[in-house]
Amino acid sequence: MNKEQLFQQIREKKSFLCVGLDTDIQKIPRFLLDTTDAIFAFNKEIVDATHDLAVAYKPNLAFYESLGVNGWNSLEKTVNYIRYNYPDLFIIADAKRGDIGNTSSLYARAFFDSMDFDAVTVAPYMGEDSVKPFLTYVDRWVILLALTSNKGADDFQYMSEDGERLFERVLKYSSEWGDEENMMYVVGATRAETLSDIRKIVPDHFLLVPGVGAQGGSLAEVARYGMNKQCGLLVNSSRQIIYASSGEDFAAKARSAAQEVQTEMAGLLDQYL
Amino acid sequence: MNKEQLFQQIREKKSFLCVGLDTDIQKIPRFLLDTTDAIFAFNKEIVDATHDLAVAYKPNLAFYESLGVNGWNSLEKTVNYIRYNYPDLFIIADAKRGDIGNTSSLYARAFFDSMDFDAVTVAPYMGEDSVKPFLTYVDRWVILLALTSNKGADDFQYMSEDGERLFERVLKYSSEWGDEENMMYVVGATRAETLSDIRKIVPDHFLLVPGVGAQGGSLAEVARYGMNKQCGLLVNSSRQIIYASSGEDFAAKARSAAQEVQTEMAGLLDQYL
Repeated sequence: MNKEQLFQQIREKKSFLCVGLDTDIQKIPRFLLDTTDAIFAFNKEIVDATHDLAVAYKPNLAFYESLGVNGWNSLEKTVNYIRYNYPDLFIIADAKRGDIGNTSSLYARAFFDSMDFDAVTVAPYMGEDSVKPFLTYVDRWVILLALTSNKGADDFQYMSEDGERLFERVLKYSSEWGDEENMMYVVGATRAETLSDIRKIVPDHFLLVPGVGAQGGSLAEVARYGMNKQCGLLVNSSRQIIYASSGEDFAAKARSAAQEVQTEMAGLLDQYL
Repeated sequence: MNKEQLFQQIREKKSFLCVGLDTDIQKIPRFLLDTTDAIFAFNKEIVDATHDLAVAYKPNLAFYESLGVNGWNSLEKTVNYIRYNYPDLFIIADAKRGDIGNTSSLYARAFFDSMDFDAVTVAPYMGEDSVKPFLTYVDRWVILLALTSNKGADDFQYMSEDGERLFERVLKYSSEWGDEENMMYVVGATRAETLSDIRKIVPDHFLLVPGVGAQGGSLAEVARYGMNKQCGLLVNSSRQIIYASSGEDFAAKARSAAQEVQTEMAGLLDQYL
């Protein structure tokens, strides 16, 4: 999917919601455990119930890897299900990969060839040659970690040389490796005020923003400081939506939670676009 | 495996060799492709042929993930095979993971519970809470990226604030999160002279050193600047050993290549310990 198509989806659905499929076997409704693939069954219900309110889905790989081969199977089925039934959705592998060049090529192959993801999150620590192999695919995206939403972000990401902080250097350097048609950045919602600084460096790129909801970030603040003329935001919500209920009504409750976020998003899109 | 047991292995085998199982379906001998699990068959032969010359094996996850569910299966079989047949070997998941705290816990579960790895490589960009969940397991290890061997290492790892470079800050901060009984660091052999600086910060930790061989680093230089009184080094070699031949003699040729490295290592251990 290219940038214009993504923006088109955002306009049509009046939503820039990304639903995080952080599907934890210990948190999904108990009754699903009787099915042969409970993780996939859960994801399918969540996607069916929310697909018209969200523009993107983001399985976090850790949840699937922790289940070994079975988890990997559930992940592949989830991606295939979304691609086949809702071809307009943007699918992100939240993998935070990154390795030396020839090895990153294999990760790219894993997510873009073996599986049909639109985008993969990548950690920038190893620099240019660890990122570039992902950029050789047409209409596929790298989403590079810039400023994350967790406490540990303070340890290294704010390190500063000549007035430039590490996350700013990541934005600056990497925007030379790709462009706003194949790169996005992860910027935590818990740092909404910093979004202004970030927009000075990457005014046109999309930002993937975790940390709204359970982690305490404010959607209005994110839109105020981060939205650009093509929206430029994908705001992720995971637990708040997918675990809205642990009963048989989990999918309906997930829809209500997504609806609430989408309504707020529609208002913000009206306000800023 | 704890530090003393690892050092014991190093003394007995007179080796600090780690063999990288970067097993690429496009590079293994053609005749293996007739077997039901060619990746596992290759790994099994390599391990059988070299187990007495190496102390550690390091599958790089990218090679397995790029094959989807089948690759994940081959990886699990490889780990189980090594654990069952050669219980004294140290097994490293070269995964370069790292995510927010609750998610990193799941990666830890994937590598230490679902699979029986001794250690996992982790990227430091997201800071303390992304690393700590791996440190709660007894006799399991985090191997944190400090200074990598690739060209892209120059992009961010040398960034400097108040005379302290990013890789030095990573060493300093993280050595407070764990200790030399549960943390190691990745330090590329292509930066051998920098090992002296690194040893000032982490004199007692083990270092995992890639980049000897195909990437051009010198084993003698690494030992000179990096060895401590418990050796403190695991030097990785991948392509040079596992692809020493692409014929039916690949295992025998891998053994010869490993033997050559081990002989040099024995000499260096005699010289410095």
